[in-house]
Amino acid sequence: MNVLDRFYKGDKIALSKLISYVENQSTGYRKLLAQIYPKAGRAYRVGMTGPPGAGKSTIVDKLTSLLTKEKKRVGIIAVDPTSPFTGGALLGDRIRMQDLTTRDGVFIRSMATRGSYGGLATSTKEVCLVLDAFGKDWILIETVGVGQVELDVVNACDTTIVVFVPESGDSIQAMKAGLMEIADIFVVNKSDREGAKRVISELDMILDIRRKKGEWECPIVSTEALNNKGIDLLLAKIFEHKKFISENGVLEQHRKNQIKGDLKRIIELKVKELLDEKILNSFDIDQIAERVYKGEDDPYSAGERVLNKVNLGK
Amino acid sequence: MNVLDRFYKGDKIALSKLISYVENQSTGYRKLLAQIYPKAGRAYRVGMTGPPGAGKSTIVDKLTSLLTKEKKRVGIIAVDPTSPFTGGALLGDRIRMQDLTTRDGVFIRSMATRGSYGGLATSTKEVCLVLDAFGKDWILIETVGVGQVELDVVNACDTTIVVFVPESGDSIQAMKAGLMEIADIFVVNKSDREGAKRVISELDMILDIRRKKGEWECPIVSTEALNNKGIDLLLAKIFEHKKFISENGVLEQHRKNQIKGDLKRIIELKVKELLDEKILNSFDIDQIAERVYKGEDDPYSAGERVLNKVNLGK
Repeated sequence: MNVLDRFYKGDKIALSKLISYVENQSTGYRKLLAQIYPKAGRAYRVGMTGPPGAGKSTIVDKLTSLLTKEKKRVGIIAVDPTSPFTGGALLGDRIRMQDLTTRDGVFIRSMATRGSYGGLATSTKEVCLVLDAFGKDWILIETVGVGQVELDVVNACDTTIVVFVPESGDSIQAMKAGLMEIADIFVVNKSDREGAKRVISELDMILDIRRKKGEWECPIVSTEALNNKGIDLLLAKIFEHKKFISENGVLEQHRKNQIKGDLKRIIELKVKELLDEKILNSFDIDQIAERVYKGEDDPYSAGERVLNKVNLGK
Repeated sequence: MNVLDRFYKGDKIALSKLISYVENQSTGYRKLLAQIYPKAGRAYRVGMTGPPGAGKSTIVDKLTSLLTKEKKRVGIIAVDPTSPFTGGALLGDRIRMQDLTTRDGVFIRSMATRGSYGGLATSTKEVCLVLDAFGKDWILIETVGVGQVELDVVNACDTTIVVFVPESGDSIQAMKAGLMEIADIFVVNKSDREGAKRVISELDMILDIRRKKGEWECPIVSTEALNNKGIDLLLAKIFEHKKFISENGVLEQHRKNQIKGDLKRIIELKVKELLDEKILNSFDIDQIAERVYKGEDDPYSAGERVLNKVNLGK
């Protein structure tokens, strides 16, 4: 029996293999994705981002417990676009989360930066697709907050949660607008600590400004994830949001937009490969570079000239 | 007199305007870059990266002082691919550095994440080009260490400096290989603090492994930038490296490789625009997305089909 058959039968090792295959972009991985694509589209994706140390892993852990109690099959992706300077910092969380893997129906995958940031967001989407096709009902994506990648990653989810801690108070005002706008649910974790009220009221103020009639009203949920407090309410809010976007057509539109995004990404990637193959590694480019170096040409004009001669079709 | 004329005459306001123009990728910015390209190619670029709080801005500040004493014209680019969660953290440094702008021949530009990480590295290179064409002798690029962007940014420089502090001891072993490999000079700043010796001996060990005959031997320079200690030695080492790579042809090869990189980037960007214009925003894509949503198609196969019909030439 080949890997794909075992994958369809629910074999976890086959799942692991296919994920690695996709993550490493091994030969023919796109063909594989094309094959399993029709099986996907049922999983509900929840994205979670927030500053390091906000307790995201713990929240994911507790949410997963609740979901598995309801017999849901959960996939977890931990995305870690970590600085080369803090490479090892998050390892603890990952190890702790491994407890979950022993539970039925739960699968965890950590993904770290490889090559480029853009690549990480893309890989994450593709791993999502594999988990989805495998039959996961829920995919929880956790990512540490360091910038554009997690915006890209969590933005591709159906429900996006931004987690704060009471200590975030000072930085909320300074935070990038983009981050506030993508949140469907705010969580203030470790809410027993000093400053929790202030953070909540600041978030409330921000929400007041963006509130629009008929649109989803982003709730603020207080949690103490370590003590399992507020997690049931958080899950209830996730279900509420799921219901809201399912009923008013937002989810359908969101999915279609994602498909369009996938399509664009796939086409762009393919074009990049064709470019590499047809032009960028050619002798011409060496010659142009030589002329530019001598001051006889400039790359902007040369680029235009090269492109005017290209036909990417077969 | 138009902006470009004023730019060529050394007008700082014109320089600012052109930089913004390029940074914002305003209409026709590539034509502008093509125009000024022949004027560039003389500036020597020094890149500096390292963990937050390592004192990079102070080192850049002190280096600039030494360079301006030698009548060199210095451009400084501070690249800040900061987390949305720590958006304001680096502001202090920037404000402090503004002192420098009053000095003759010094120009500072801060650049923050916009759009995508890849975009930031590209913008930085293009702003470099503008400063170069403006007549700067030296361009110092400082970037805070959070990952791939600064690797891309500093890797594009002629001399790359990686800054540590005594507290970095624990993380050096865990650090990504890529970061260690790009360094032409290591700096251990705040070297009066405890742990400096340990960091130096750890770096020494790493260097021992990578040392090769006939290649540049990456030195480790101890500094206390705040007290202006060791900066003259650092500058001497930079000059030594500059001499080394100029004489053995490495600089020339490096520049040519950069030109090839520029050329590829320009072509890829242009292709992306053509794609957007010709296919990705077309009605076809909407139709395909609709079919994929209904499960009648998959984006991987559809992407291939679309591309087989495309001709990107004029």
